[in-house]
Amino acid sequence: MKLLEERIRKEGKALNETVLKVDSFINHQVDAEFMDALGRDFAEHFKDYGITKVFTIESSGIAPALMTAKHLDVPMVILKKQTSKILQGDVYQTNITSFTKGTSYELTLYKNYISPEDRILLIDDFLANGEAATGAGRLIGQAGATLAGIGILIEKSFQRGRKRLEDAGFYVYSQARIGRLAEGVIEFLPEDAPATE
Amino acid sequence: MKLLEERIRKEGKALNETVLKVDSFINHQVDAEFMDALGRDFAEHFKDYGITKVFTIESSGIAPALMTAKHLDVPMVILKKQTSKILQGDVYQTNITSFTKGTSYELTLYKNYISPEDRILLIDDFLANGEAATGAGRLIGQAGATLAGIGILIEKSFQRGRKRLEDAGFYVYSQARIGRLAEGVIEFLPEDAPATE
Repeated sequence: MKLLEERIRKEGKALNETVLKVDSFINHQVDAEFMDALGRDFAEHFKDYGITKVFTIESSGIAPALMTAKHLDVPMVILKKQTSKILQGDVYQTNITSFTKGTSYELTLYKNYISPEDRILLIDDFLANGEAATGAGRLIGQAGATLAGIGILIEKSFQRGRKRLEDAGFYVYSQARIGRLAEGVIEFLPEDAPATE
Repeated sequence: MKLLEERIRKEGKALNETVLKVDSFINHQVDAEFMDALGRDFAEHFKDYGITKVFTIESSGIAPALMTAKHLDVPMVILKKQTSKILQGDVYQTNITSFTKGTSYELTLYKNYISPEDRILLIDDFLANGEAATGAGRLIGQAGATLAGIGILIEKSFQRGRKRLEDAGFYVYSQARIGRLAEGVIEFLPEDAPATE
């Protein structure tokens, strides 16, 4: 998606081979009109997928997910990061461990907000190794619902997230795919480039 | 604001004298069209305040803040909850301790995203004792900027947040003011009711 690629070229900062900072318009300061445009693009892309709900993982995915939900005219659900298991029967939980970040949490969804008929579109800001998205897929599977598509703002295509999600049978659409990062260097891949191992 | 009061009457669940659950349209599942309407109301209310940025605190305030920013046509900034101090010179931080929740974190703002000329509108979902909003006021003060107004979805008017913020010289507009909660009971206050001690 040209609009996002252009903005990343202009304002993104590649610090090294893995870190891309987009603090000025996505993660910390957020350009609301721009998010609206990204949400409209996701809604357009997934309009024939029979989406009933948009899911996201707190907190950087909330802004684009909200705009996508608005344009699809469906509710958004925020999957919560809990530090510990909730010992009641009214939630689905699954553990997410990020080895790169050294963090671990229980991704949590109240059962009220999903049903087996749901066709979910998962929206997130970044896709790297795909731990969080894979976990969201597990939660949705626990509920007997369908993860009908995954929409990502920025995919680090040199990491294994897309391959992992595609191998699990999920469809991924990324608005910007980064083929290579280095200090001061950002290279994009075309939308239809194959997933790397 | 009648729209929010009606929705709270319909879907809100008062569990006891302090806890009101609004998980089905604000906190966990989010009604995007409804958030758009709340954001439009905030933008209308604060249109003559010379607002240059909308701030919020992650993560439940992000949805209404994003919609408010869109309608005011200004950027949104998400104040981050860090577990520890960042030992670089490029951030403002202030400690927030919630005695009711038993939590403590460093509210964090990168200096790039605020300047002394900024007139900030702070948007948050709940106002109870006002710890987080008071802390945001301190951060904005550290930057030499102005906290020109505070917009709250749901104010627990029986707690001391509004009084504390007004005593600090801040203007507060709440879309719904709760005068009393009890199991199964939700009572509202009019918009112009005085703050309680």
